[in-house]
Amino acid sequence: MSKIKTPSQSETIMNELVLPNDTNTLNNLMGGRLLHWMDIVAAIAAQKHSNRTVVTASVDSVSFNQGIGLGDVVTLKSYVTRAFTTSMEVFIEVWCENIPKGTRFKCNEAYYTFVAVDGNVRPISVPEIKPETDEQKAKYDGALRRRQLRLILAGRMIPEDANELKALFVKG
Amino acid sequence: MSKIKTPSQSETIMNELVLPNDTNTLNNLMGGRLLHWMDIVAAIAAQKHSNRTVVTASVDSVSFNQGIGLGDVVTLKSYVTRAFTTSMEVFIEVWCENIPKGTRFKCNEAYYTFVAVDGNVRPISVPEIKPETDEQKAKYDGALRRRQLRLILAGRMIPEDANELKALFVKG
Amino acid sequence: MSKIKTPSQSETIMNELVLPNDTNTLNNLMGGRLLHWMDIVAAIAAQKHSNRTVVTASVDSVSFNQGIGLGDVVTLKSYVTRAFTTSMEVFIEVWCENIPKGTRFKCNEAYYTFVAVDGNVRPISVPEIKPETDEQKAKYDGALRRRQLRLILAGRMIPEDANELKALFVKG
Amino acid sequence: MSKIKTPSQSETIMNELVLPNDTNTLNNLMGGRLLHWMDIVAAIAAQKHSNRTVVTASVDSVSFNQGIGLGDVVTLKSYVTRAFTTSMEVFIEVWCENIPKGTRFKCNEAYYTFVAVDGNVRPISVPEIKPETDEQKAKYDGALRRRQLRLILAGRMIPEDANELKALFVKG
Amino acid sequence: MSKIKTPSQSETIMNELVLPNDTNTLNNLMGGRLLHWMDIVAAIAAQKHSNRTVVTASVDSVSFNQGIGLGDVVTLKSYVTRAFTTSMEVFIEVWCENIPKGTRFKCNEAYYTFVAVDGNVRPISVPEIKPETDEQKAKYDGALRRRQLRLILAGRMIPEDANELKALFVKG
Amino acid sequence: MSKIKTPSQSETIMNELVLPNDTNTLNNLMGGRLLHWMDIVAAIAAQKHSNRTVVTASVDSVSFNQGIGLGDVVTLKSYVTRAFTTSMEVFIEVWCENIPKGTRFKCNEAYYTFVAVDGNVRPISVPEIKPETDEQKAKYDGALRRRQLRLILAGRMIPEDANELKALFVKG
Repeated sequence: MSKIKTPSQSETIMNELVLPNDTNTLNNLMGGRLLHWMDIVAAIAAQKHSNRTVVTASVDSVSFNQGIGLGDVVTLKSYVTRAFTTSMEVFIEVWCENIPKGTRFKCNEAYYTFVAVDGNVRPISVPEIKPETDEQKAKYDGALRRRQLRLILAGRMIPEDANELKALFVKG
Repeated sequence: MSKIKTPSQSETIMNELVLPNDTNTLNNLMGGRLLHWMDIVAAIAAQKHSNRTVVTASVDSVSFNQGIGLGDVVTLKSYVTRAFTTSMEVFIEVWCENIPKGTRFKCNEAYYTFVAVDGNVRPISVPEIKPETDEQKAKYDGALRRRQLRLILAGRMIPEDANELKALFVKG
Repeated sequence: MSKIKTPSQSETIMNELVLPNDTNTLNNLMGGRLLHWMDIVAAIAAQKHSNRTVVTASVDSVSFNQGIGLGDVVTLKSYVTRAFTTSMEVFIEVWCENIPKGTRFKCNEAYYTFVAVDGNVRPISVPEIKPETDEQKAKYDGALRRRQLRLILAGRMIPEDANELKALFVKG
Repeated sequence: MSKIKTPSQSETIMNELVLPNDTNTLNNLMGGRLLHWMDIVAAIAAQKHSNRTVVTASVDSVSFNQGIGLGDVVTLKSYVTRAFTTSMEVFIEVWCENIPKGTRFKCNEAYYTFVAVDGNVRPISVPEIKPETDEQKAKYDGALRRRQLRLILAGRMIPEDANELKALFVKG
Repeated sequence: MSKIKTPSQSETIMNELVLPNDTNTLNNLMGGRLLHWMDIVAAIAAQKHSNRTVVTASVDSVSFNQGIGLGDVVTLKSYVTRAFTTSMEVFIEVWCENIPKGTRFKCNEAYYTFVAVDGNVRPISVPEIKPETDEQKAKYDGALRRRQLRLILAGRMIPEDANELKALFVKG
Repeated sequence: MSKIKTPSQSETIMNELVLPNDTNTLNNLMGGRLLHWMDIVAAIAAQKHSNRTVVTASVDSVSFNQGIGLGDVVTLKSYVTRAFTTSMEVFIEVWCENIPKGTRFKCNEAYYTFVAVDGNVRPISVPEIKPETDEQKAKYDGALRRRQLRLILAGRMIPEDANELKALFVKG
């Protein structure tokens, strides 16, 4: 499949209202629930890019900084940053907003990876990505480094071979 | 709080049956649903260690290798590997089993971090960990390195200062 | 509150994936589930316009034309079309897409009405709307006629007094 | 199918307890959740009348007057008011009750329309309705007028042709 | 509280549609889900009798004979059979119906016991029951015997003291 | 199938966190929700023993003594106590724990019975049980008596023939 697509063609926006069952005893959104929503918004973006059924391959490290409260509106935005032969890296940005209080802040960002599959659940090739904006280009370039980190963390690459990543630790 | 606890004191086991609403159109467990279950089993372990309410601070990179099917039994096991002043790293191991078919394999492992909080949602100190088995000791030692990686990925430490992690990339 | 806002300031987009529990025995999305999602996306738009907690006051007639299948992506878009003293009419447009099959069509549209309330659940005034695009202007104008229909159907206005509506039935 | 049935043969009663996840931040039942329950109780009535699988075709305008609280018992009653070739209009009445407080009031009523379908999801004819009580007769007669309004609102009939409806606006 | 009520004053009917998430891998309703629905319909009946908040005290032995399939309509009917000082025994009858197939059969019956509580969750007295029909009288009489069995099974009565129950085993 | 298994081979542990939707208006876990969890943990044990798909055949009398609160951790433990030709009795023990408060108590125990079925939902034989510990032996012996009680309560055995059970009521 030689088609080339832009990140904006896979952009997906999702809004969720934090309901009682999504919260812990502090009345804050549970981290696991947010990870679930991120997976859905990212899977839709990966589907849009590949026009295929997709399965989650990995989620990169995510940190949770501020509490998101009951009744808040959570806005998740996702797009494909880079495609490899059969896999796609998706960037997700999460904003939360307490509308009656007029507060709104960015609470998280994350990278999920998906594999496109055919009807027999076998990996199948996906279109390439051509980034357009500066942000998209920076994410496209960083994708290689994040991929090496993923392979090392999964025990499938040895650190010495991760050239892009190594450059972070060894200056000059 | 000067008390010292062992990892086995926080060990938690959870079994879940994969139901239709947990699956995608391939009849496989969605990645986001599994991340949600991991968050719950890890939060219980962190509660047991700290005897406090806990909030999720971060999840490390997780990869998903094999499909988990509708009707499978998913077994999640968690324990605290190391405690820092007010935070705890929790290791989670996930096994899945199709009992009528007699198949059983390890499908995932992950590290989540939690912070213990008091009634005003302010961080509060937690007991230290004293590892006992070889596996527990290895995880206790690796916790420093994983913590540096988390801080770098969250933009709160510069790579040059991450001595434990740097050693992986620069031999000799 | 004399502030004036545009419809685009309340625009809200929501994507939902049709999961097994959302479907009937034909594997199609149940109408009631879609009405529930419409209520959420419309409530968020009304919150954005009023910066208040809002409660659903009514839903206008909705028709369901084509089946939406399991695994489809449902995209809901909403914005406030017109504000009355304490109430707001919200327009919702629903598109559904089977991404692997490459099909996408508009499946529904609807009007919901919300009332803004204060902490004691008493109605409170909301900003006015200033429509900008042609579509927004047409919806703004039609809002009076739809409001008369709602009042008649709820038994709170007699048909003879509904001038805008009457004009539809009596030419010349 | 020449069989004739009475409205009471399709009468269906459903009771639901308002649970935390059904409520908004005011601890009141969300409108969308109630629309979902109405759809289920009405679909069961339409199934009973037609002995067929049914799909929701439309919901008429519904207004929400009073808040229904957490822990309240919501009673929904439905029956088929009139059958057209392959479709059925169903009337739903909703009562809510706070039993410990001893309060009980009628909170809503609505009309949903369903189409009976065969195994290939093609419309199939349904039995006629023979109303018995005065209330049933009034609803049977009004069904024509409501049907014209539905067709006009869906853009499938021009107002001038809606004789029953027109009579409401033009006296004498 | 000296008021006396009849069983029919607490009669409650609930209809549920079996959805995908209620079923096991055989596409049949899970037993645990049905026990949950029985608890809700019985709690509403106990609330109606006592006009109080109620908590489940026990469920008697229930057997499950036939499979209830996806898409079936489950009808649950409950009423209070007898009241003791602060507790009530509730009888529940479950019917299931596959409407398109035209099958309908009684699938279960059960007895649940509830305690009425005040605002501090302390038991509070409830009205007495005066049975009217033959079925109601038979259930009223059998309630003593079932209560003895419950007390024995909970280890709070010794079998020798259970006169009504003993009569079943020792003739003459 | 002549294989013999021990109770510990089917032992299953499940932990659940009490979330808002699991609770009643007193903020306590609803009895029906707990019965549902017991059914799942017991079904997994029966699956492990038989390596078959299983269906719930009955639940014995269960009593609920103390309130389990929102945020509590509920631990359920199950194992097969005795196998009959195609059915298995499973014992379930429920503990609940408020970890921040440091309270932990046993709240329930129950016996569920399951039947193993083949692909056509026909009963199929299961391995025998060989109890090892004193507790397991006591439960193995009591299983006959509980089975007679189940058959009597289901109207499939007359009390006079229930020798094990009769001995409880008639001394000497």
